[in-house]
Formats: sequence, C-alpha cells, structure tokens
Amino acid sequence: MTSSATSPVLDTARRAKAAAAVLAPLPRAVRDGALLVIADALRARTEEIVAANAEDIAKARVNRTSEAIIDRLTLTPERIEAIAADVAKVVALPDPVGEVVRGSTLPNGLELRQVRVPLGVVGIIYEARPNVTVDAAALCLKSGNAVLLRGSSSAYASNTALVAVLRDAVESAGLPADAVQLVPGESRESVKELMRARGLVDVLIPRGGASLIRTVVEESTVPVIETGVGNCHVYVDEHADLDMAVRVLVNAKASRPSVCNAAETVLVHTAVADAFLPRALAALAEAGVTVHGDPSWQRASDTVVPATDEDWATEYLSYDIAAAVVPDLDAAVAHIRQWSSGHTEAIITRDQAAARRFVSLVDSTAVMVNASTRFTDGSQFGFGAEIGISTQKLHARGPMGLPELTSTKYVVTGDGHIR
Amino acid sequence: MTSSATSPVLDTARRAKAAAAVLAPLPRAVRDGALLVIADALRARTEEIVAANAEDIAKARVNRTSEAIIDRLTLTPERIEAIAADVAKVVALPDPVGEVVRGSTLPNGLELRQVRVPLGVVGIIYEARPNVTVDAAALCLKSGNAVLLRGSSSAYASNTALVAVLRDAVESAGLPADAVQLVPGESRESVKELMRARGLVDVLIPRGGASLIRTVVEESTVPVIETGVGNCHVYVDEHADLDMAVRVLVNAKASRPSVCNAAETVLVHTAVADAFLPRALAALAEAGVTVHGDPSWQRASDTVVPATDEDWATEYLSYDIAAAVVPDLDAAVAHIRQWSSGHTEAIITRDQAAARRFVSLVDSTAVMVNASTRFTDGSQFGFGAEIGISTQKLHARGPMGLPELTSTKYVVTGDGHIR
Repeated sequence: MTSSATSPVLDTARRAKAAAAVLAPLPRAVRDGALLVIADALRARTEEIVAANAEDIAKARVNRTSEAIIDRLTLTPERIEAIAADVAKVVALPDPVGEVVRGSTLPNGLELRQVRVPLGVVGIIYEARPNVTVDAAALCLKSGNAVLLRGSSSAYASNTALVAVLRDAVESAGLPADAVQLVPGESRESVKELMRARGLVDVLIPRGGASLIRTVVEESTVPVIETGVGNCHVYVDEHADLDMAVRVLVNAKASRPSVCNAAETVLVHTAVADAFLPRALAALAEAGVTVHGDPSWQRASDTVVPATDEDWATEYLSYDIAAAVVPDLDAAVAHIRQWSSGHTEAIITRDQAAARRFVSLVDSTAVMVNASTRFTDGSQFGFGAEIGISTQKLHARGPMGLPELTSTKYVVTGDGHIR
Repeated sequence: MTSSATSPVLDTARRAKAAAAVLAPLPRAVRDGALLVIADALRARTEEIVAANAEDIAKARVNRTSEAIIDRLTLTPERIEAIAADVAKVVALPDPVGEVVRGSTLPNGLELRQVRVPLGVVGIIYEARPNVTVDAAALCLKSGNAVLLRGSSSAYASNTALVAVLRDAVESAGLPADAVQLVPGESRESVKELMRARGLVDVLIPRGGASLIRTVVEESTVPVIETGVGNCHVYVDEHADLDMAVRVLVNAKASRPSVCNAAETVLVHTAVADAFLPRALAALAEAGVTVHGDPSWQRASDTVVPATDEDWATEYLSYDIAAAVVPDLDAAVAHIRQWSSGHTEAIITRDQAAARRFVSLVDSTAVMVNASTRFTDGSQFGFGAEIGISTQKLHARGPMGLPELTSTKYVVTGDGHIR
C-alpha cells in the first residue's frame, strides 16, 4: 500500500512499479532477447547518442569542467560499441531469477521452496559517467527489475538520448517501455522525492561521492544499499615477505588511485619497520605517492608529511597514503577497526597464524591475504558484472552481481493443510 | 568511523560494539556453552525473576491494563522453565557463523571464499512479552552478535531482572557481559537515539505494532528489518475444492486471529461464489467471525457488514474478515497487489495452471497453494527459531532464522597477487 500523493517523480515510480509487475514473471528468454535488441539499438543509433553527448560536453566546457571529468563524460562511437558489447555479455550470465535457494518437504508433507525473485523497482542514483545508464539498465532487466535512473545533471542530454534508445528497444522486444525510466528533473529535489517513495521503490543504490551517499543513507525511507566508500588498509606483518609487501603496496596504492579499492593507509609491524620503511618510501616516491606518516615514518625520511587523525580517516583517491608503524598485529586490527570504512584490508605475511587472526578479527567486506586490495571488484571476483560494491552488512556485502539484485519468495504447496 | 557524541544509549551501543568484536571470532563451542549456562541460570534464579515480574504486573493493574496484556506480561515458574528449555534448543541448531556461502579459485590462482560472519550489534525493539528478551538474546549470541534490548516500559522490571541473569551467565561463561545489554531509559527518546546510532548498531529489528514499526522505518539511519505486519489474503479459485477452501479459510482466519499470518481478506472467484459464499458464511459465523463484505457478499447474507476501502487495507487481528467476489484470478492478484502488506497469500485451487500463475504474479513473502496462511512461521518452516518475520525485500524476506542474523565477508588468499 502506498500513498496517493502525486508528482512527476512519484508518477515515474508508479509506472515503474506497474512495469515491474509485468517483468517479474517473464522467462529468461524474453529478458535476454530484450538485452540483445538493446545492444543492436545502441549500435544503430550511435550518431544520435554522440550528438546528444556533444551538448553535455559543450555545457561542461562553458562551466570550465576539468578535462578529466569531461573525459569520463565523453561518448565516442568506440565507447558506445564497448557499452553495447558489455550488454551482450550480460545476456550470457546465469539467470538469478527462479533459482531455488533452499527447499524441503516438511514433516506434515508441505513442500517448501525459497525461490529468487526480482526486487521489483531499483533506483540508481549516480554521477557523471553515462555508461552507467546502460550498465545499470542491463543488469536490472536481466534480473527482472524495473529501473529508475537518476544520473548527473551534467550528463542529462546523454542520458536522455540513451534512455530513449533503451525504451524503444525494450518496447520492440515486447516488454513495457517503463521498465527503464529516467527520473525527471535535474535538481536535488528529484533525488529527495525518490528517497521518500517507499512502497513504490524497493531499493535505492547511490553510486558516487561520499556526500551523495551520506545524504541518501541518512534521509531515505526507501531501503538503501550503501556502496563504494573505501578507506582501505595494507598491513605489513612481522613475518611478511618484504619484496612482496612493497609490490602489493605500490599496486594497491598507485595502480589506480581514484577507485574505492585503492589503499589509503599502510600499517607496518615495528619489527620490520627499519627494513621496510626505506624500501617502501623509495618505491612509493617512484610511483609519485606522497606519504603522510606518523613519527616513525617521519624519522625515516624528510619527504614524509606529518599525519594527523584526519589522514587516518581520509579516502584520498589520489597519490597520497597515510602510514604508521604499529607494535603488533592486534594494534593494526585496532587501527583498522577505528578508522576503516569497512571496504577492503590486506595483510602481507608468511605466517599462517597471523593470516588467520587478521582474517578473523578484521570486520570488513573483503580481507586479502598476500594480495592487493585492488582485487575487490565484481569482474575480478568472476561475477561477470557489478552494480556497485556494498560496504554495508545487510542484504549484500562486497561486489554486487545479479543475485544481489534479487529477493526471495517462499512458495509452500500442500493439499489443504491447516494448523 | 562513528561520531564521538555521548549519551547513556550511545555508551551502551559503544560497549556492545566492543563486545561484538570479542564475540565474532569465538568458536561455536564457546557460544553454545554460554547458552547452556544461561538456561541453567534462568532456572536457578526463577524466584528473583518472578518477583521482578510481580512489580510490572502490579503497575499494570494500577494502569488498568487489560487482562489479555497482563497475561502476555506474566512470568510463572512454568513459563520460565519453558523459556530456559527454548534456550537449550537453540544450542542444538546448526551454527551459521563460518559457513562458506560460495567459493572458487579464480583464473589467476586467487582463492575466493564468501564466509558467513555475525552482523555485529543487533538492536531489538519490542513490546510487552518479556520472553522475547531471552529468545532474542539467545539467537543473537548463537549467531555471534551482541544484542541491545529495548523492551516495553511496561516490562521494565522483568527485563531488568532477566538481563541481569543473562549478563551474569554470559560473563561466567567467559564472554563479555556487554554482549547482552538493556537499553537504558523507558522513554521514546531512547529508541530515537538507537535509530541514529549508525556505525555502532548494525541493524535494528522492530517487533511490535504497526506504529512502532513505521516510526523506526521512517526515522532510522541504522539499517532496519521491517517485520510482521500482515494483511494476508485467501483466494478461492474457480477450480477450488470448496470443502478444502472452507477448512483452510476458517483455519487461516480463526485459529489465532491476533497473529500476523492470520488471514484478513477472502477473495472468491465469481464462478464459485453461489456455491461457496453460503458455506463460508456458515462456517465463519460458527467460528465467531464477522464478515465485512462487498455487495455480492452482502446479498448472500444480511449478517454481512458493508465493506469499504478501509476494510481492504486493515489488519484486523480480530474475529473480522473482509470479503469480496472477483471476476477472475488476475483480478484477485490485482486486489492483493493493491492492498496486501506483502506477508502471505494463499490460493485454493485444483488447477495447476492457476496455481502457477498465482505463485508467479503475487509479490509477497510467502505464497501458499492449498495451505493455510498460518504456516508462515519460523518453527513451522523448520528453522527451529525465529527472530521475526521480515516483510521487506532486502536481506531477509519471510521468517528469519539464524542465517538471517549474519552477514558475509570475502576472504581472498594469494601469494603476492597484484593487478
């Protein structure tokens, strides 16, 4: 039951709910067929999409947007081909809908099955990159959900063009066009309305900066999956292979600093500090990384910037890293428990007991043993697709693939059973 | 990371978080051992608990509380023995913690495991019955969680005595006493503080009336699992066995009207209305049920009270039922989609195609085919215990057992893997 209040955003959500009811019982073949039509349509209408994208880019230049952001915004025929190819790949993924998660015959003869079903209406709130528009729509359709897309106002023309292509394709494949909708309005107000559409929207997934995510988490009455804030740690244990530790640390920090699975703090066991710090400092300097260190790190080099509590808390997303020396593994765990965002932490150690203890005490989405934090990723994990990385504990934790876009339903069959 | 604000409630939550960190890595034997100590302690300190309970009952009589509610509040030595026996039963349930939910070796040799871990700190907000205090604590401890108990102010003395027994027992078993805490304060303010303790409390589970649940769902920034509001339907299909339909309907409505899995509306296919309505009316009348019917039902008997939209929306929890005749199965589904709370719906039919269609179109937690709605229940489903029945789609849907009190963590093991 839902309120009868009305507005363009709520009307969109109502149409999505109606479309979701049509989508839910459709067999896989129909949903996959629609995805193939979408891939073809993106290719066929590339020119139209590029033209709309040019409007966004022109506006971005007027607003003196940075070239890095303009690059993320830009759609070329090659990029559209890549997006279409990704849609076709989703077709090949296993269908999560209808999977029997558990089942039994009860002592009284009732047959119990817990079956995966679509969530219903999934709202995605995201920034900048227009490829998310297509990715998110494809994953939602594959999993039988209707999707409400609320992209960045800076990509409004691109998203409008893409959604028009998606809707035409979906409709020509025999599905309701309203299975894919752009949320009207470019203001923050439309996000707020979406957050209050409990009963119409089944889940909101904010993808973007920390402030967007915090707002949605704090203000939404619709259930939210919190994604992607990563203050990740690498702990170099007393028993670490120091060559490995340097290699993993540099990879975790510098292979792509702008992503949520990049390392933001390195913690080093005091027993190996003298041996490790000079080597780490040299390798990090070579990779262009500035170290914000505690007194031990400061003593090791005058290039080290003194660290404050702010540094332990910060997700730099840049060529910066916080660094501390700790007396033992438990102190490393205590630091992580205090400051981590709960995304990914790594331990480098040769010692089996230390690895076990670290894995058991660290309360984060992913714990790496002798591997880079950068591996926390849906495609690296072999899920084939990712709608985001959940850093919350309910429903989904870690990279979310298609099963995480479903709920379940109990189906109980009897022959007149009563209690 | 969490704010440094302080208050008695937040301090309680912080102690719970510290206790959760100690609980999480403990092996099953230690957690089960604590439960056995709890069961013994409840038996040994029965007198003390009954005395505290007498205070609550005296207060309830002064407040002219109804005898039904006083009965729910009352603890006798027999009831305490039953509560202790239930705790001992929880010991025998499988341990959800540490279960490997999925795992694989990735093409690059990384070993990926998704392992069940405790949620951390579970907050339960509940009304009246003090047995929930012990049930909830036992299930949380079994699943490795610390628990914050916020019971009704009308049971404050009972809950205080029970929690004292639980804490002493837990501590004597070698676990931190703060694994079980009563939330201080009897006012609504303490619930509000709990709802804002994001980062300290991992999930809130409100159990109780619709208004309590609505408040928590709307105002909490801590993730919530919505439980237990049930506006359940029985649909009597064109191809129903009418004897079975009468039997299931009466059971679903009248075997225990005060619970969330009781039926609140019956929908009848027009083709069997003439045959079914008189028999249903007679059987419902005999069970003491008042029918609030649409014009078709009103024509069938002058005992039928005219139904309004209010009736379709109401969870009576009493010997009342709303009743309508529908033109076909799809109209029944449409009625359910419009008015149901998404708890449990039943179809009575001999027709396999009708059963399949109803199951596939109805979007509720549980769908019964030829069985009473009353079966949606953790112990009926064979889960051995139940912390509530989730009517939301995220994380848990339907009766929640021990696995629903856990999250997961990815453990990834390599030998120096980098991307």
